[in-house]
Amino acid sequence: MSLYVMKFGGSSVGDTERMKRVAKRIVEKQDEGHQCVVVVSAMGDTTDDLIDQAKLLNPNPPAREMDMLMTTGEQISIALLSMAIHDLGRSAVSLTGWQAGFRTEPVHGKARITDISPERVMSALNENHIVIVAGFQGMTEDGEITTLGRGGSDTTAVALAAAIKADVCEIYTDVDGIYSTDPRIVKCARKLAEISYDEMLELANLGAAVLHPRAVEYAKHHNVQLVVRSSFNYNEGTAVKEETSVEQGVVVSGIAYDKNVARISILGVEDVPGVLAQVFGALAEAQINVDIIVQSGVQDGKADFSFTTSLAECDLALEVIQGLRSKLPYRDVTSERDLVKVSIVGAGMISHPGVAAQMFDVISQQGVSIKMVSTSEIKTSCVIENGNLEQVVRALHTAYNLDTDAQVYVGGPQVRR
Amino acid sequence: MSLYVMKFGGSSVGDTERMKRVAKRIVEKQDEGHQCVVVVSAMGDTTDDLIDQAKLLNPNPPAREMDMLMTTGEQISIALLSMAIHDLGRSAVSLTGWQAGFRTEPVHGKARITDISPERVMSALNENHIVIVAGFQGMTEDGEITTLGRGGSDTTAVALAAAIKADVCEIYTDVDGIYSTDPRIVKCARKLAEISYDEMLELANLGAAVLHPRAVEYAKHHNVQLVVRSSFNYNEGTAVKEETSVEQGVVVSGIAYDKNVARISILGVEDVPGVLAQVFGALAEAQINVDIIVQSGVQDGKADFSFTTSLAECDLALEVIQGLRSKLPYRDVTSERDLVKVSIVGAGMISHPGVAAQMFDVISQQGVSIKMVSTSEIKTSCVIENGNLEQVVRALHTAYNLDTDAQVYVGGPQVRR
Repeated sequence: MSLYVMKFGGSSVGDTERMKRVAKRIVEKQDEGHQCVVVVSAMGDTTDDLIDQAKLLNPNPPAREMDMLMTTGEQISIALLSMAIHDLGRSAVSLTGWQAGFRTEPVHGKARITDISPERVMSALNENHIVIVAGFQGMTEDGEITTLGRGGSDTTAVALAAAIKADVCEIYTDVDGIYSTDPRIVKCARKLAEISYDEMLELANLGAAVLHPRAVEYAKHHNVQLVVRSSFNYNEGTAVKEETSVEQGVVVSGIAYDKNVARISILGVEDVPGVLAQVFGALAEAQINVDIIVQSGVQDGKADFSFTTSLAECDLALEVIQGLRSKLPYRDVTSERDLVKVSIVGAGMISHPGVAAQMFDVISQQGVSIKMVSTSEIKTSCVIENGNLEQVVRALHTAYNLDTDAQVYVGGPQVRR
Repeated sequence: MSLYVMKFGGSSVGDTERMKRVAKRIVEKQDEGHQCVVVVSAMGDTTDDLIDQAKLLNPNPPAREMDMLMTTGEQISIALLSMAIHDLGRSAVSLTGWQAGFRTEPVHGKARITDISPERVMSALNENHIVIVAGFQGMTEDGEITTLGRGGSDTTAVALAAAIKADVCEIYTDVDGIYSTDPRIVKCARKLAEISYDEMLELANLGAAVLHPRAVEYAKHHNVQLVVRSSFNYNEGTAVKEETSVEQGVVVSGIAYDKNVARISILGVEDVPGVLAQVFGALAEAQINVDIIVQSGVQDGKADFSFTTSLAECDLALEVIQGLRSKLPYRDVTSERDLVKVSIVGAGMISHPGVAAQMFDVISQQGVSIKMVSTSEIKTSCVIENGNLEQVVRALHTAYNLDTDAQVYVGGPQVRR
């Protein structure tokens, strides 16, 4: 007998039929002799519908009241899923976030979990109930209802799995697992049997954003074994864990890309100490996320440097830079918007020199010039022009022996909270 | 400065526009210098929609999970109403039943309030917030979410008003107040300026069932002054309180009727001690509500007696009586279904002899024969044939000087929980 945490996202419980299918799936797990704790998100469009209603009453609703409103979405899901399980002749108990013992910071809309007291979950399990917990929500010490923000329900599942020492935390979604790259671009993308936490973190933005980075970090930190699999079929998913058995010849596990990249270059800046701190301090203050930073060599006491941001934040970043001109003289500022970032990720890269060089070679063979490069121990990223993205991803996929004959991808991108 | 509890039913917050109107109403009350605690029901059809969803998954859902589901309806209302108040530039805090300190019996679907700990309501009031409390719900000692069942949100409002020692508990609804009789039958029905708890209890089933008897009982027991008024206009409503100033010449305050009356007669029963206890004990065990009971004189050691039930329970009652035949021999059992009950209610009846006699006289003048009579200190009820109900109600309304020239009735029957 193992203890499973099974997490189902909003699209997996999007309507009555899907809800019934999920109930059946859970009962089957129990029939195999396992204990089941289920974490569930709000049904399909519920969250958006609630937001629409709120906006009609207040274009800028207070975060506390939004949490009060939004948490009803998961409460509806847990009650209905419990009823569906009862209809199959099994006993289930639904618990809201606060009932399941989730304590959070006193922050609304994006609280972090501070503590989990899973006594009620455990005692319900010990009475042979299937336990159904509302994802995405918790309560402060003062009894205020909070939501966890980005990656919410995945984080609920992983944190609960850690707290109750579950054997496995299964994330059910609408794709079969983690792919070597986005199957919408590369038809012969392969589903990975397993992947390390670090690789998963790097790939987290790959394709359909199957797992939220925050949940992966939590899993890594608490050593919770994750399995990502489909709620629509019985295919084996992808295991995400600390150590993975590196396949023969597989140095790169996956290829990720980001289509919304802008580059900003500041040219002819006086090269005095503290220049970079001043620029990136001002950008951070404006809540702008900066990704890759490259500084060129200094000439005549002047330096050029470039950085990338998301396309959406490019204009704001330019404003911030222009605002600095009086304090920090520079010759010119330029921006390029039609860029993408392509990355190869693999734990095996550390022990295989020349992997990055091969990447540059493959990209140049496609007649594409590389604008910026960034490396880490398990990742190499190149910023290139957008027009050639798909061609480059396919070439890299082939070059790193990731192509497969089978085409197993099912479903579209998942709507999630 | 007074402390108000203001309760708004589901139809008063049925859509966005109505929700905004309610928010404005509350802010106006604050502008008059008062403190406001608001109790609100689920919006319009929310409750029915949730029930429909549940039935699709489980035709017989567990009561615990139904409570988990249904309580989201009020939670949505309180969050949205709070947002609407914030949009008007005021500060409001929404609280679920458990947050507001409502403790109940460990019963699902129809729990009774055992205790209210209103500390959180009071501290929010003292910080100058408008406090918005979810009606109809509470929590057991073990942290289980419960609902209050029939009369739920009215009872929440009255109980909270008692707990926080509010000056007035206003029940906002879609009619202007309590009427002398159903304005759909008698166009010249008058709105009562005030009425006693006891009269209100007797009239509770009058017209649109404006107040639930359970809430009136609670108000009487804790001496909470109620005002029933419309959420759609600013007319003064009807005050419900202990002592009312009896108007000159007004002995009867109102005329109530019940259209769903059946009479069952058991004929030729052996008149031995315990016969009545046996019959009505069996009916009570079958959850059948019996209203009027009349026993005729004994002849040759045999008695006849009759009782009334609701039309819906008549068949079940007949079954119960037939099941008793072996233990309790009787000659025959008969039933009449096309009956109605008309009642006159008035605290002044005690000190005015002849009021009942006048009622019998008025009814017989309409050519209608009286089948059964029941009296209390402040009420006389007659069971008559259905066909003449409206004519009889109008004649009684005129006879007891209740007719008015103005026609102020607005709106239809209220959907309520």
